[in-house]
Amino acid sequence: MSVGSVLVTGGTGYIGSFTTLALLEAGYKVVVADNLYNSSPEALKRVELICGKKAEFIQVDVTEETGFDKVFEAHPDIDSVIHFAALKAVGESGEKPLDYYLVNVYGTINLLRSMVKHNVTNIVFSSSATVYGDATRFPNMIPIPEDCPLGPTNPYGNTKFAVETAITDVINAQRNNAIKAGNEAEAKKWNGALLRYFNPAGAHPSGIMGEDPQGVPYNLLPLLAQVATGKREKLMVFGDDYDSHDGTAIRDYIHILDLSDGHLKALNYLRANNPGVRAWNLGTGKGSTVYEMIRAFSAAVGKDQPYEVAPRRAGDVLNLTANPTRANTELGWKAERTLEQACDDLWLWTKNNPQGYRQEPPAELLAQLKK
Amino acid sequence: MSVGSVLVTGGTGYIGSFTTLALLEAGYKVVVADNLYNSSPEALKRVELICGKKAEFIQVDVTEETGFDKVFEAHPDIDSVIHFAALKAVGESGEKPLDYYLVNVYGTINLLRSMVKHNVTNIVFSSSATVYGDATRFPNMIPIPEDCPLGPTNPYGNTKFAVETAITDVINAQRNNAIKAGNEAEAKKWNGALLRYFNPAGAHPSGIMGEDPQGVPYNLLPLLAQVATGKREKLMVFGDDYDSHDGTAIRDYIHILDLSDGHLKALNYLRANNPGVRAWNLGTGKGSTVYEMIRAFSAAVGKDQPYEVAPRRAGDVLNLTANPTRANTELGWKAERTLEQACDDLWLWTKNNPQGYRQEPPAELLAQLKK
Repeated sequence: MSVGSVLVTGGTGYIGSFTTLALLEAGYKVVVADNLYNSSPEALKRVELICGKKAEFIQVDVTEETGFDKVFEAHPDIDSVIHFAALKAVGESGEKPLDYYLVNVYGTINLLRSMVKHNVTNIVFSSSATVYGDATRFPNMIPIPEDCPLGPTNPYGNTKFAVETAITDVINAQRNNAIKAGNEAEAKKWNGALLRYFNPAGAHPSGIMGEDPQGVPYNLLPLLAQVATGKREKLMVFGDDYDSHDGTAIRDYIHILDLSDGHLKALNYLRANNPGVRAWNLGTGKGSTVYEMIRAFSAAVGKDQPYEVAPRRAGDVLNLTANPTRANTELGWKAERTLEQACDDLWLWTKNNPQGYRQEPPAELLAQLKK
Repeated sequence: MSVGSVLVTGGTGYIGSFTTLALLEAGYKVVVADNLYNSSPEALKRVELICGKKAEFIQVDVTEETGFDKVFEAHPDIDSVIHFAALKAVGESGEKPLDYYLVNVYGTINLLRSMVKHNVTNIVFSSSATVYGDATRFPNMIPIPEDCPLGPTNPYGNTKFAVETAITDVINAQRNNAIKAGNEAEAKKWNGALLRYFNPAGAHPSGIMGEDPQGVPYNLLPLLAQVATGKREKLMVFGDDYDSHDGTAIRDYIHILDLSDGHLKALNYLRANNPGVRAWNLGTGKGSTVYEMIRAFSAAVGKDQPYEVAPRRAGDVLNLTANPTRANTELGWKAERTLEQACDDLWLWTKNNPQGYRQEPPAELLAQLKK
């Protein structure tokens, strides 16, 4: 039974596909829009294998002026959007910032324009802890609460920040204009969730669904997974001279199933409570260093993974650990899975699917799934 | 003799047309691109009457994808852009934020994309003191220096802030990519000036060129000018309960000829010194309250101007006064004209051109001009 219809932009990507799964499992009808850059429609087939329900797929690029208009015209029952579609590599954003401003910033402006035109009134935005920048500037703000002053340190973070202000300004204007027109019911319909998350990790415990980066991955765990399968000789550790207990940078790794559940809870909260625009951190509240992650993943694999220390990357910061109290109390959401489970699930996915979504899922995992 | 070729976007607007005049007087070749929303091509005829030189005009909208490509293809000698084209009303930005994000943010992304494509390497951006937001949060930061933390308080300011980061990120990337390719000469060509200004005021002392807002003006002096000519019954003073000596808000009013000269000096500085991206305040360093401005303009007119106190406007702040030291020392620029001169020049323009640019300039002013 459908509890509502949701558009998921970037829904074939890593977090997007897991959130599509969570929405379908919760009874939502889901339309996925994606340009299939750095992702595969096969992800949605895996979603269907796991939950027995199907998302509709439409190929759309966020920068295509009338792209979302067509989606909303074809699906007048959609009242909410979960917006993932974006470029996401911090390093690349320093080399090709225009692409990031076009896709991330203009793409969202274009989406918002279409939402306003078609009266689609809720948006859950895939923001990032990167908007906080170097939160260690504020010693009393680690772990980071949502009211920590924002100050991104790289173009990727700047685009996420600009999108947060655009969503905030547009939702507030829709509300204020409706209130001025005496229509309080209309005002309450406009809501936005800015979900700032920390480092997504892991895969589906079935082993048939996970992250499938095209080209060179940027994040620690996908890189470690490539080392474990021999695709990559060793892991590069960018900086061992940070002010942490072992010198490597601290991040808050959150299991992808917890993260996608956070999106579902945020959407439900917007629809039930009409809060206007509100930011929530999605993290565990516990930081792990790069060395700790190497040990955790090595334990999952049963073999020490080789690494080499390299200089810090431009734009990286010492510590990004969430204070998730607001999401815990308001959304009734909590990260429940352990780092060990994330590593186990990642390794199950990696060793069974060396070609990612470019191969059929292994028969024995499919057989287990049906049990 | 031409010292270079410059594109001025929004060059028929108030500050844009005066900067076009300053550029032509300094020997630059100028191409003006404007969509003529809220401005008139007549401004460029007045420029020609005053300086005897002509800017080329092309009608372009900043959101037109290939608009600037066509301009740069037709004018391969352009190496610099002064970018004014934008929506500029703080109040309106709260009601129609999408328009502001489209025109101001996407318009600039579009311009930058075209500049990179056509190797146009210098940009002087018409930013705003609004990016500082409520600088009174930092008691030691009044008057405001450029390194005051930024924090806009309204959608207009948010769009100016987003554009500042976009320009910074794109220019830095062009430089870094060139340096990585071993081409330091190419790197140095990419430069950006973020000019944060305070309140432009006044008109050309000839009386034939000034601000000609379509519809309801937003700023204090154009409103006062309408009161003086009887178009408006009285001035609304938005807030007399601010923490200033007379309770009204403090702004830094700068004569339009000083402001346009600042743009010229910034462009010259970029071309001569290759600083990369740098922000400069353009202001006098001296703040005036609304009541002081009413008295100054009343003195210019020779008659007290009526006013009425109304509640504060959303997004307004107590004090926006520039610390202009950086521009004084680095650009060799200083605001030299007095507030009295700004008021006199505004009144000369206003009383002689009740229809603004929709009328011919008075014959007696033209005769004086030729002397």
